[in-house]
Amino acid sequence: MNTYNATITITLRKGILDVQGKTVEHALHATDFPMISHLRIGKFVELTVEAETMESAHTLLEGACLKLITNPIMEDFSISIHEPKAEQV
Amino acid sequence: MNTYNATITITLRKGILDVQGKTVEHALHATDFPMISHLRIGKFVELTVEAETMESAHTLLEGACLKLITNPIMEDFSISIHEPKAEQV
Repeated sequence: MNTYNATITITLRKGILDVQGKTVEHALHATDFPMISHLRIGKFVELTVEAETMESAHTLLEGACLKLITNPIMEDFSISIHEPKAEQV
Repeated sequence: MNTYNATITITLRKGILDVQGKTVEHALHATDFPMISHLRIGKFVELTVEAETMESAHTLLEGACLKLITNPIMEDFSISIHEPKAEQV
């Protein structure tokens, strides 16, 4: 079993209104930052996962995303898995 | 002026309790995913910014993060700026 570090980037799908992002963008425009636009706020998940291979870690995280971590109707996600932290033979 | 796409990754500082992350981790352990651990949830901001150079875009976003987008006492952030979308001479 290897322990992998992974990150999941979750973004609202195109066409879904991002109320939080719009609010932050308005606040930026009202202060010193009118040059910032198209601001959208998603989530960034960091975790570690135990799996045999990178591929099985990816499949496992995809399942976790679809089942619990994200809302697949409103959100897209992308998984990135990094090299194993420590190998246990 | 160039228009740059940028993303900002915001994570809770080490030592700050991540209640949302702990809740998701418990839910994962209660379902089919006991092999996932150390889960922490941050934010992922996508935006476009108008600036002369990549360096000035970075400085500008750093200011916006410190002033409004993040809570620098509780959160760390990292800014990543991509190539200009379209150049206007």
